[in-house]
This record gives sequence, C-alpha cells and structure tokens, in this order.
Amino acid sequence: MKKLLALLLALCLMLPVLVSCGNDGQANTTATNTAQGENVPEANYDGKAPKYIFLFIGDGMSYSQIQATAAYVGATTDGDGKPKNLNFMNFESVGSAVNYTTDSIIPDSAASGTSIATGKKTNTGYLGLSPDGTEKYESIAEKLKSQLGMKVGIVTSVNLNHATPAAFYAHINSRSEGTGVSTQLFESGFDYFAGGTFFKSSKDDPDFDMNALAEKYGYKIVSTYADAGKLTKDDGKVIVFEENPDTDGALSYEIDREEGMWALSDYVSKGIELLDNDKGFFMMCESGKIDWASHANDAATIVNEVKALSNAVQVAIDFAEAHKDETLIIVTGDHETGGFSLGFAGTDTSTAFELLSSQKISFQKFSDEVIPTYKGKKIDVTAIADMEKYFGLTLEGDGELVLTDSEYARIEEAYKSARMGSRPTSPTEEQKLLYGDYWPLAATLTGIINNKAGLNFSSWDHTALPVAVYAQGVGSSMFIGHYDNTNICNNLMKIMNVK
Amino acid sequence: MKKLLALLLALCLMLPVLVSCGNDGQANTTATNTAQGENVPEANYDGKAPKYIFLFIGDGMSYSQIQATAAYVGATTDGDGKPKNLNFMNFESVGSAVNYTTDSIIPDSAASGTSIATGKKTNTGYLGLSPDGTEKYESIAEKLKSQLGMKVGIVTSVNLNHATPAAFYAHINSRSEGTGVSTQLFESGFDYFAGGTFFKSSKDDPDFDMNALAEKYGYKIVSTYADAGKLTKDDGKVIVFEENPDTDGALSYEIDREEGMWALSDYVSKGIELLDNDKGFFMMCESGKIDWASHANDAATIVNEVKALSNAVQVAIDFAEAHKDETLIIVTGDHETGGFSLGFAGTDTSTAFELLSSQKISFQKFSDEVIPTYKGKKIDVTAIADMEKYFGLTLEGDGELVLTDSEYARIEEAYKSARMGSRPTSPTEEQKLLYGDYWPLAATLTGIINNKAGLNFSSWDHTALPVAVYAQGVGSSMFIGHYDNTNICNNLMKIMNVK
Repeated sequence: MKKLLALLLALCLMLPVLVSCGNDGQANTTATNTAQGENVPEANYDGKAPKYIFLFIGDGMSYSQIQATAAYVGATTDGDGKPKNLNFMNFESVGSAVNYTTDSIIPDSAASGTSIATGKKTNTGYLGLSPDGTEKYESIAEKLKSQLGMKVGIVTSVNLNHATPAAFYAHINSRSEGTGVSTQLFESGFDYFAGGTFFKSSKDDPDFDMNALAEKYGYKIVSTYADAGKLTKDDGKVIVFEENPDTDGALSYEIDREEGMWALSDYVSKGIELLDNDKGFFMMCESGKIDWASHANDAATIVNEVKALSNAVQVAIDFAEAHKDETLIIVTGDHETGGFSLGFAGTDTSTAFELLSSQKISFQKFSDEVIPTYKGKKIDVTAIADMEKYFGLTLEGDGELVLTDSEYARIEEAYKSARMGSRPTSPTEEQKLLYGDYWPLAATLTGIINNKAGLNFSSWDHTALPVAVYAQGVGSSMFIGHYDNTNICNNLMKIMNVK
Repeated sequence: MKKLLALLLALCLMLPVLVSCGNDGQANTTATNTAQGENVPEANYDGKAPKYIFLFIGDGMSYSQIQATAAYVGATTDGDGKPKNLNFMNFESVGSAVNYTTDSIIPDSAASGTSIATGKKTNTGYLGLSPDGTEKYESIAEKLKSQLGMKVGIVTSVNLNHATPAAFYAHINSRSEGTGVSTQLFESGFDYFAGGTFFKSSKDDPDFDMNALAEKYGYKIVSTYADAGKLTKDDGKVIVFEENPDTDGALSYEIDREEGMWALSDYVSKGIELLDNDKGFFMMCESGKIDWASHANDAATIVNEVKALSNAVQVAIDFAEAHKDETLIIVTGDHETGGFSLGFAGTDTSTAFELLSSQKISFQKFSDEVIPTYKGKKIDVTAIADMEKYFGLTLEGDGELVLTDSEYARIEEAYKSARMGSRPTSPTEEQKLLYGDYWPLAATLTGIINNKAGLNFSSWDHTALPVAVYAQGVGSSMFIGHYDNTNICNNLMKIMNVK
C-alpha cells in the first residue's frame, strides 16, 4: 500500500507537467477577458463519492475574520504569541471564491447562499429562485436527498428561516418573508434542523401555525437542551430550536454563552447522531453571527464566533477520522462583512490582538442589558466601572487599556444617547459613519478596543472581498483554484454524480 | 498519450481518497495548536524541475487589490459589467500565505521579502540575514545561480535597491542603507537588473561610486530606453535604470505613464531576451508601486498598477506557451497595504468601480505637479477646473461625481495646506488619521473618489491580511494550500532540488 501511495503521489505531482502538454487553455487567456462567473473548472471527477458531506459556512467570514482569529488564538495561547492555524486552515485543498450576484458586486446572504447551494446566481434577497422569479433552483441538499436518498441536516447559529440556511430549502423572491420561508422549511422534508427560532416580520402571516405544519409534515419540535439531548433516530424528522435564544431568536454569541448552554458544535454532534444512516448524509452548518458581529464591527465577538465555528468543524474532523475514505468537509464563507482590516491608521504596523480578550461581552448583550441602565443618568462611577468590567478600559493607571483624552471624549459623546434612552432618530452623516445603526456607546467602546488592538473596519455592511474555501477528504481536490462560488455546488454535483 | 493523461488524471483525482487512508495527521489537529510558520507541507516533489521560473510579487497586493482590479476591469470593459478575472487568477494552482515576521504580526517588505526569497523569517527591516544578524540567509536566486548555473533577473517598478528586490541579493540588517544594499547588488553577480534608480539616504556613504563598482564586477549600466532596447546577450551582466524615474527614482505610475515610456512588461520582455540560455533562468519581477499607491489609499492608481502587473505576467504566460513543459510562473504578494476595503460605510452595498476611471492622475503626480501651483492662492476657477480635469469632480450638474456640501467642505479644509505651500508640520491626531503623511488635498480628492466608488481604506500602512498565491506550469501543484510564505522558497527548493 505504501509503495502504491508513493507511486500515485509521484504521478500526481508530475501531473501538472504532463497536463501542461495538452492543456493550452488555462493560462492562455488574455489579461482581462475571463468573466468570473464563467470560470468553471473543466475537470471532471472520476473518484469515489463521499458518503458524508459537511459544508460549514461562516456568514460574513473571509480572510480577515479567519486570520484575526488565528492571530488572537496565537496571542492568547501559551507559546510564541504568533498566529496559530485554526483546524480548517490545515485542510489539504484550498481555493478562493468570488460571490457577486446578478444585481450587485457586493452580495447579500440570500443570493450568495443561493449560489453556494444551487450553483446558480440570482438577485439580492432571492432564495433558490431565478432572477426573473420563474424557475426554482434546486439545492445540492434537495438533489442529494431526492436522487441519492441521503439524509439532510441544516444547522445554524441564527434563525432557522434566515437567508443562509433557507438557501438550501426555500424558493422565494424575498428572504424577509419569514413565515413563507418557514413553511418551505417544513415542505423540504429535510431530516434535522437545529438553530435559532423562526423570525417573523410585520408583513408576515399572522396566522402562521408552526405546530400545525409540524403535524402535517411529520416533524417533532423540541426547544430544550434536555429534550434535544434525548432525541434518537426513532424520533424521525426533527426541528431543534435553541433553548436560550437571544432577542433576535439566535443562539447566544459565543463570548456571552453561559455554562450549560449548547454551542454550535453541540448541534453538529447531535446532528451526526441523528443523521447517520446507510445512505449517508449532507449537513450544512452556518455560523451566522460572525456576520452579525462583523456588521457591528465588534472584533472580540467575531474572533470568539470564528473559534466556535472551528470547534464545530472539529466535530466533523473527528467524525471523518472514524469514517476514513467516506467523508468530505468543506469550510467557506458567503462574503466578507465590515471591511475588517488587520491594521489601523492610528497604530501603523503595531498590533495587540491579546487586548481583544479584555472585552467580556458582545456589543449586543451590552446594548440589551447594560446601556438601558444608563437612562437618565450622567456618566458616574457605575458607568466607569462597567467600562473596566466589560471592556477592561480604565481612566487611570498603566497599560494599553488606559483611555486617552480623545477616546474618553468619544465615549462622553456616545453616552448621550444612552442617557436619553434612545438611539439617534435622525442621525447625521457623521453619526451614520461612526455608529451605523448601533448604539453609539456600544460602537464606541468596541471601536476603541478594536483600535487599541490595531484593528479597524471600513463598513457596517458586506464587502466584495473574495472568500476562502478549505476542503478535506474525499473529493476535496475539486475545490482547488480561484473560482465563482457557484462552483462549490457545481463541483459537489460532479463529485456526487447528481444532476 | 491521451489515454495516459486520462489515467493519470483519474489517479490524481482519486489521490485524496487514497491518501486519506494513510495520512491521519493533516485534519487531525486540534482547533488551535498549529503554528503557522511550522505549517510546511510534508509532500516532497518527484516531478521535473522547470527550466524557467518567473516569480511576480505585487508589493502590498492581497485579495482586495486584486479583486478591486477585477471589478474595475469588468466595470470599464464592454460586457456585463461583472468582475473579470485577471490572467493569473485563472492559474491552475492557488494557495494563500501568511507573512508575520519574527518581531511583528504585520510585516514590512524586507522581512516578508526575505521569507519569500530565503524560506526563513527575520526581523522587520532585515534583508537575507538571521534575526540575530549573524547568519546570511541564501536566497533561492543565489542558490539557483550557484548550484545550477541558472541566470538570474531582478526587475522592479521601484528602486533596484528597495526592500523586495534586495531580499533576493542582499544580506544586511537595515533596508535603509541604500549604498550598502546597492554594493551587494553588484556583488551578487546576477545577470539582469532592471527598474528604478538607487535610492540614497542621508546616512549613506557619500562616496558611493556606482560606476567603479560596475567596472569592478563587470556590469554594463544603461539608462535610456534606446540603449536598453539595443542590449543583447553579448553585453553580459547589465543594469537597466529607468529613463524617466519619478521623484523617488521609481518607474512612473501606470496611470501617469506617457507614450513611449517603458512599462513593467517591457522590462520583463527585455529580461527574457537577455536571460534565455541552456541552463535556464529565474526572474523575480516586483510591482512595487501597488504598495506605494495602497499606502496613499489611492484606489484608481492601485487598479492601474495591478493591471500593469497583469500585463507583465502576460509576457511570462506567452513565453510559457512557447516553452511548454519547461516553465513555472508564480504570482503573489508580500503583504496587504492600506486595509483596502471593497465596501464603505457611507455607501452600504453599492459600488461604482467605473468611477475610478474618472481619476486621471496619481496622488503623487498631483502632489508633485499640481498642488504646488496653489501656493498663495485661494480656491479659484483653476483649482475647481483641476478637480474636474484630474478627478472628474464637479460642483454642479448631474451624476455621481457632483460634490456634496460635506465633500466640498473637506476639500476646502484640505486646500489650506496647499495654499500655505506646506503639509502640516505638527499634525493633530485627526489630521494623521485623515491624511497620513500625504498632502491633505491629494488624500481628500482620492478619498472622495474611493468613497463614491464604494471603497474605503483603514490604514496608511501594511496590514496582516494573508496574500494569494497563484501558480501555473511545472511544479505549480506545490503551491496549493494555506501556508507560511517561507514555503514559497522552501517548495521552490524542493522543485529545483537545491539546498
């Protein structure tokens, strides 16, 4: 076996040499004439199909979110302080993917999710539907279920009817139709859903009856950790809602997660237990709050979310170890969020990633639970103590977390809305740039920590940076190269031989 | 032959499956325990060695600079307006590389260049020397010349003794010792140097005699396009200095380049002509002004520089077409500069890359040639006409380039130093964030164009974003994966079987 492997390895390493004789096309393009969406590798797949497929999507996660986490882990772990690879950064196959939509260079999660899930581009806000709204685009999850009988699991740290998970089961021209999307979740017949509760917007069907749909389509719904823990394969199709959803219905941010609360990795473990069967499974697991934290420009919360994703990937890696020759793991993002920069104009080339660990709370929890306590109050000892308690920031003393006069002036300005008890209703252009749609005090405190760590953000929204693709296991070589993110689905289809 | 190829392709595609049986290590790491610098792929290389190696380094070029150019080319080319791959984005092998140094998470070009050139990390500012200053680190160029007799060419759009080119021939503990580095250039014995003139700092040897060194080491120096064009192999070792260096001694920015002036691609073409020989050659070609334009946060100048790099790569691609089976081309960057974001807080998810084409001049030429004409003058019709002439910006009319009141207020503020004839000597913290070390008016006008195009920057310096690696041809498979940039040299050594 070892000799055979050596021979194959030698042949494979020689392949580029040999292939270059016959393959004139690839590098022979002119400098500018290849549309990115058309850049589908022509290589076919003649290998074995994996029995188990894990597709992890870090929403809003691109190179900056990943490398910031690698640097943070290195800076806060015993050792030389240098960046440490997260587990998926060591995967054997690496690619990069672009993600523009039919109507925007910068994508939203619905259209980008549709590209990854169905291999076809569509409009911003559309899910599994053609840009003209007439054609349903079948997702890889639907294909694997209907054509191969594989079980399907959909896991997310945000709402189960949010854009990224919905791209794998829904066909609708508006991601904001919460009940419409939720109804299609039941209709999908997928085997395991786990994550945050359904969101519902004001224009949604007020009579939406989740339990009636569950009965109609044969789903068991549980919403406590205890009940989720007891689920077995005998329970059939299940939906597991988070027991402690945040105000948006999502899982807690990892930075806020308390003892006993399930992490994303727990939902992946449970999914494996329930989905494993003779025909195999496809599991999509989204870490949706990397995006939310990136929208809020909250670096400490981002790196904790990416660590949580890495922990969830570890569950798949461990499973693959026990199922050699049968498993494919892909880790990617749908787009970058925040224009997150691992550098800042005020700190030049200095960084101090370890300072992110001084932040003990997400922007969201601080906004929900702490800022309301300041209503009607001037900045007092409590507010100043909170700055140290939650962000490590002090007015006096030594060290890098002592506030400068200008930083404290920014805090005083931002505190005004906390004291008034409401965010600016008609924000000025400057306020919009400074705070986005967030509580000025939360944006200012996290912003000061970001900057002290040597980090900065350029946007409160998504950007057009390409995303990384890491793949390991059976068929992973199909994800090498630079390509459009539609190829993630298209190449999965080749690997699995589905149409 | 075709059958053999098909067999090899099938074997190669199956390889991950087969290898996964015996290779337990790769994905079996825990989430956080792999130091990035140690992540050297264990795969050896048993293929053929290429005879011709091109290594293109975009200084300051990472995913954002590359994708901005792809989007700009798409937006300004007939067609669907969607991003178009630059030629090297279609290369068969893609990797990503991290680049921290022994003393900084964010690298400078000297230490990062040393990593790429020698396979070893060192301190910021060091060139081809160990962090303790005691050991010379031999570069891949030196190894290929001494061990295999290959000819070596070093091409750059900036000074020939600047950090990136110097990393391939110098061994010195300070990149700023201009004459020290220049002396080592002559000592290298490399065959072809082409680019900007030597920089010299105040602490450099005032008696440095370039011509004496040229005579001693047998170099012919030319500094006109006419003389450069006449060079033949019979001229032996040559140094070609740019005929029209800018104020820093570098080639003109592509956006400013005039008819008849040589582009980076011309220097690559000439290099191929002079270097081609029975034992092959190694050519490093740096596009150094992507970095300079990124430092200045000038997006229009960046995308034109990246296009110029792509044109230079095209020369290598064409050469490879004529030398199939013998050529390896690598395109990478040494680090990202500017925290360049393909998105901006003021424009959310809207972009208008085509607006960059309304800028007709680099920040540098505008600063050198236009701003001085404003000394002692209020903003008048000339200054307003210049804004339209050079940046397309107008005070009235329709379209996206009409200045808002707040934009015009920023220009008025920035104009003050132009009127005074000097940049702020003791800039405030706010001025440093707004303008870096640049002329406020240049930074403001390019900043307004950036923002109107939906782009933004976070820093005036380098950042820690990983860089892309694209490889095509003989041995290119060795550059797949996510790794430390030292692996670029280390894997070249394996491919070429040098020590």
